[in-house]
Amino acid sequence: MQLTVDVLGIESGGKPIIFLNKSDADEIGVTASGRVLLRAKKEITAIVNISTKTVKKGHIGISEEVRQLFGSAPHKLDVEISAFPKSLQFIRNKLEGKKLLDNEIYEIVKGVVDGTLNESEIASFVTALHIRGLDLDEATSLSQSMVKTGKQLNLRNKIIVDKHSIGGVPGDKTTLLVVPIVAAAGLIIPKTSSRAITSAAGTADRAECLMPVNLSADEMKQTVKKTNGCIVWGGALELAPADDIFVRTEYSLYIDPLLLPSIMSKKKAVGATHVVLDIPTGRGAKVKTINEADYLAKDLIELGRRLKMHTHCVLSYGEQPVGYTIGPALEAKEALEVLMNEANVPDLIDKACKIAGAIFEMTGRKNGYAMAHEVIKSGRAEAKLRQIIAAQGGNPKIKPKNIPIGDQTIRLKAKSDGKLLWINNASVVEIARMAGAPKDKGAGVVFGKKIGDNVSKDDVIFTVHAEKSRKLSRTHDLLEGLNPVGVGKRTDMIIHTVREIPELKRSFVLER
Amino acid sequence: MQLTVDVLGIESGGKPIIFLNKSDADEIGVTASGRVLLRAKKEITAIVNISTKTVKKGHIGISEEVRQLFGSAPHKLDVEISAFPKSLQFIRNKLEGKKLLDNEIYEIVKGVVDGTLNESEIASFVTALHIRGLDLDEATSLSQSMVKTGKQLNLRNKIIVDKHSIGGVPGDKTTLLVVPIVAAAGLIIPKTSSRAITSAAGTADRAECLMPVNLSADEMKQTVKKTNGCIVWGGALELAPADDIFVRTEYSLYIDPLLLPSIMSKKKAVGATHVVLDIPTGRGAKVKTINEADYLAKDLIELGRRLKMHTHCVLSYGEQPVGYTIGPALEAKEALEVLMNEANVPDLIDKACKIAGAIFEMTGRKNGYAMAHEVIKSGRAEAKLRQIIAAQGGNPKIKPKNIPIGDQTIRLKAKSDGKLLWINNASVVEIARMAGAPKDKGAGVVFGKKIGDNVSKDDVIFTVHAEKSRKLSRTHDLLEGLNPVGVGKRTDMIIHTVREIPELKRSFVLER
Repeated sequence: MQLTVDVLGIESGGKPIIFLNKSDADEIGVTASGRVLLRAKKEITAIVNISTKTVKKGHIGISEEVRQLFGSAPHKLDVEISAFPKSLQFIRNKLEGKKLLDNEIYEIVKGVVDGTLNESEIASFVTALHIRGLDLDEATSLSQSMVKTGKQLNLRNKIIVDKHSIGGVPGDKTTLLVVPIVAAAGLIIPKTSSRAITSAAGTADRAECLMPVNLSADEMKQTVKKTNGCIVWGGALELAPADDIFVRTEYSLYIDPLLLPSIMSKKKAVGATHVVLDIPTGRGAKVKTINEADYLAKDLIELGRRLKMHTHCVLSYGEQPVGYTIGPALEAKEALEVLMNEANVPDLIDKACKIAGAIFEMTGRKNGYAMAHEVIKSGRAEAKLRQIIAAQGGNPKIKPKNIPIGDQTIRLKAKSDGKLLWINNASVVEIARMAGAPKDKGAGVVFGKKIGDNVSKDDVIFTVHAEKSRKLSRTHDLLEGLNPVGVGKRTDMIIHTVREIPELKRSFVLER
Repeated sequence: MQLTVDVLGIESGGKPIIFLNKSDADEIGVTASGRVLLRAKKEITAIVNISTKTVKKGHIGISEEVRQLFGSAPHKLDVEISAFPKSLQFIRNKLEGKKLLDNEIYEIVKGVVDGTLNESEIASFVTALHIRGLDLDEATSLSQSMVKTGKQLNLRNKIIVDKHSIGGVPGDKTTLLVVPIVAAAGLIIPKTSSRAITSAAGTADRAECLMPVNLSADEMKQTVKKTNGCIVWGGALELAPADDIFVRTEYSLYIDPLLLPSIMSKKKAVGATHVVLDIPTGRGAKVKTINEADYLAKDLIELGRRLKMHTHCVLSYGEQPVGYTIGPALEAKEALEVLMNEANVPDLIDKACKIAGAIFEMTGRKNGYAMAHEVIKSGRAEAKLRQIIAAQGGNPKIKPKNIPIGDQTIRLKAKSDGKLLWINNASVVEIARMAGAPKDKGAGVVFGKKIGDNVSKDDVIFTVHAEKSRKLSRTHDLLEGLNPVGVGKRTDMIIHTVREIPELKRSFVLER
């Protein structure tokens, strides 16, 4: 059926969608969320929206995405019902618990990226993966398909290293240290990172307090050529773009079945040959027990092997935040101070040096941990960070005091003497987010005490920073109810009481 | 955040959606498919779309649905991030295999109907129901919640009867006979029916060849008051509207986990007290074996008991089409001819009289089958149908020859002598749909032979009718490949051969 094109000027978040008048849709034989084949100079499959008013009979409204796929908007389009994509049958097979074959997974991932699968169908696939599980063959196919359906960085170095944390621990600014340490020692580390989705800060948010991170693939390559490393936001690079689409579904359902392919496809797409993965472990982290973490590590390493990447895992202590600060600016400042040897943050330094050290040893160096320490001590890591900042277009002379921190504060004080027994990571994240993080970069939480520290009555356990008083006051209301820390004697056995009708709380960190 | 309202004139298929500029969305802290709370005279939750061009910073674009929810478009709206709805936690629980409680199911269904759950979340729920299954407690809660979140008919009669087929067999025009038979005997039968989704004709499509079926709830009530019965399209009545939303997801995934609540909620919403459910059984139907059908019947009857409806089930032969015709007009014509005692279609008459007879016996009459036969024979069923046609605004004098049938035909002839051994229902449906059904009402298939009939070489097995030659010719191309019938000796054992790379075909009928 020939229809006249109306350019609607509507963006649909990357998916090719079109609007049909109800009566034309009936004639074509298609319903809302169905698929049509659009034919002009080329053929495009698009998802149908039905309208009785916006689009007149005989017309078709096209989104910006469809306009761009055609180059310029055609005047007329031939519109026909599109056959059900084969990938739907494969999704259905997974629903029934069947193991998917490599080419079947590729079809599904292609359908996700090119928009022939609609949101419901993608959600159903993700749900089926969560419930039915996926084995390492499927995870391998998913990783490879996610790489194939996106762009790749194509650096030509023989050894390219990378690190990644599966996430879940607040305040984890380790990457801001590891990249300059490793790059200063001459290794190539093209680090992409994400922004916060459910957390108080992603590495991209932290790095953005020091330098621009929205680089193009070309700018990223230039930075790496100049400095050996970079810390950029991965979202605009179209590396494994399927992942970004899967995450949207996973986020609202707080499920994460694609954890392994997601991580490994991003590493493969930058061409990594040696990878160290950090698995924070503990009650407040994504992985709760060491046993569970060991199983995950085994799978990650085998998946790495199949994707031709040497992979090591480190299990790290995840029961409390890393360092003292949570929130983009506060964390950037803490990392910078450590690299400048101006602050002593033992757990952060230890974690960064262990990870950098593991990378050194994987690539043939000895005494990696000591070597990493030495790179910080000597100031070479700081110098390298400043080179990277300059190459990414930031101010290489930036000082910790130049990083603006929210000046509205409230403090949580100890009500009694004792030890700091535990910190509830999820509550700390919620407090930082209520205070404005990650959107307000200067918002967050600074701890005065960490687990095991002696606490006297009225000692400051942590200080909340906000940029806006409105956000600070809503944080204030929340503070008591969240029960973020426990102070007491080692013999205090009750954490909290569950009352008659338990209110179940969302507690999930998607970042990886 | 206060934003200026732009009315976009876009319809979003019933869901309240809004468009935000990317930078405002970031400030509010919400992403695409997230939820915001809109506040003017009243509060509405809407789903977020992100745009960088359509909507300027400081503005909010609203869909027709949102405009209507506010009555008229407010000039300004207060826009805030909305907390995750509680229902998401309950969906998550189902994903984990937990049984849902009554109030949890109500929250989910409410979220489906009022638009606070987005398409991905609904798809995930439907998928989880499919994989995890639902027990009768959950089916009961789903049915009740689907009734509560919609309108109800509220007829005041003591006895209200209804019938329903779970579907899956082509040519099943039984309802067109049962309604007038039952109504002629003085029983109240407010029949709502659906249009075809994946089949060649829904009862609403068939009835529409005889009379208008797009009635409002008030018009429907008036018809029932005047004539005891009606046959209307249920889609515009907002009876159990959640079902229509669930069906959209189920359709593209070809799953049907909500079969029981879907059927029973629609019956409950019209106030039925006595219900007969038809379960077509056989290789070509939705339910393949008698054993399986018996289990389904047991569940349906128990669900009816819990919903306070007397429920009987009949298992009917589903291995071939009912009667000789498939397609809206052809079926309407066949039904009218039978009621006029002008055509003898034994299987159709038997099925209609058994179902009407079951309704008679459930409500205290005796010899229901004979009584139903007599109502047809005497012409009272025909007279009642004509009353209903008149009350619904049609021409009560309509004759079979007034119903237009597609005059473009091709015939499938027997290639050898033998018996008609089997008919592939799915292929017959596909042929009728290719020929134009259900959109082209005159398109369809007319059988000359049925299973068990003797066939001589060159006998016409069936004739395909189309309104448009283009559609006829595409049917022609398909005919041989589909292998729609088998003619042979009783000892021919091979149905078909699966070749090296099997092409799996979609074979699923959603109608119920």
